[in-house]
Amino acid sequence: MKALEEKIMAEGTVLPGNVLKVGSFLNQQMDSDLIMEIGREIARLYAGEKITRVLTVESSGIAIAVAAGIALHVPSVFAKKHKSANMPKEVFTAPVYSYTHKETYEIAVAKEYIGREDNVLIVDDFLANGNAVRGLMRIIEKAGARLAGCAIAIEKGFQGAGDELRAQGIRVDSLAIVQSMEGGRVEFRAQ
Amino acid sequence: MKALEEKIMAEGTVLPGNVLKVGSFLNQQMDSDLIMEIGREIARLYAGEKITRVLTVESSGIAIAVAAGIALHVPSVFAKKHKSANMPKEVFTAPVYSYTHKETYEIAVAKEYIGREDNVLIVDDFLANGNAVRGLMRIIEKAGARLAGCAIAIEKGFQGAGDELRAQGIRVDSLAIVQSMEGGRVEFRAQ
Repeated sequence: MKALEEKIMAEGTVLPGNVLKVGSFLNQQMDSDLIMEIGREIARLYAGEKITRVLTVESSGIAIAVAAGIALHVPSVFAKKHKSANMPKEVFTAPVYSYTHKETYEIAVAKEYIGREDNVLIVDDFLANGNAVRGLMRIIEKAGARLAGCAIAIEKGFQGAGDELRAQGIRVDSLAIVQSMEGGRVEFRAQ
Repeated sequence: MKALEEKIMAEGTVLPGNVLKVGSFLNQQMDSDLIMEIGREIARLYAGEKITRVLTVESSGIAIAVAAGIALHVPSVFAKKHKSANMPKEVFTAPVYSYTHKETYEIAVAKEYIGREDNVLIVDDFLANGNAVRGLMRIIEKAGARLAGCAIAIEKGFQGAGDELRAQGIRVDSLAIVQSMEGGRVEFRAQ
């Protein structure tokens, strides 16, 4: 998606440890028009797929999942990372290892919000090592639902997880694929 | 807002400890059309106010803040509750006591995402004891920005914080005000 690639070039910053900081438009601060445009693009890509639910992980995936849900007119659901007092006892869970925080945490979705009748679209802001997506896939599997695909804003192509998923036959649509950040210079994969 | 009150009556559940569970449409699962309608209503209420930024706290406030930001065509920003590895060092912080979790946590917004030129609209899913809103107000104050008002989806009117803020001269718009949940029966304040 050209608008997203341009925004990454204009405002993204490469930090040590292969971190691409996009906090000014996609994370802590969200560029509302861009977020909605991303949501509409995801809806366009999955228009023929009869999606029933959009699934993401808190917190940074929520904005894009909400925009995709709005554009698709289907509910969005976010997996929680932290135990909540109001959390129902009946949940599907999956472990996720975070390279950023160097720890394994559990993600959870209440059983009432995903079921075997669902055709689920995973949405997230980043796809790097693929751990969050694999955790969400595990929850979809436990729920007996169908995975329609994964719609990602920014894929770090050089980390390989997106291509591994594709090689497994999973549909992965990334609106921008960063092929290299060597020397602090962002290069995109042609799509 | 009639659509929100009707949804609360249809799907909200009163749990022990004055908890109003709205996880099926406003929290873990989000009714996309309703969320966008809430965003549009907030934009309508603040149309004359020249809002420059929408501010909320992760995670449950993000969906509504994103929808309000989309409707207002201004960026939305969320305060983080947990320290993040990618978090800039320069942040405005404020302590917030959570009655749900019985602990005080710190919320933080990077200084680059809020400044003295801003006219900020606080958006949140719930206003109960007002602690989250007061934490966000503290951050706006530290940034030297102006607080335009607080737009809330559901105010627990019987907990009094909304009226205290109004008595202080702060504009608070709640799309549904729950006046009582006695005996598990939700009653709204006429607006």
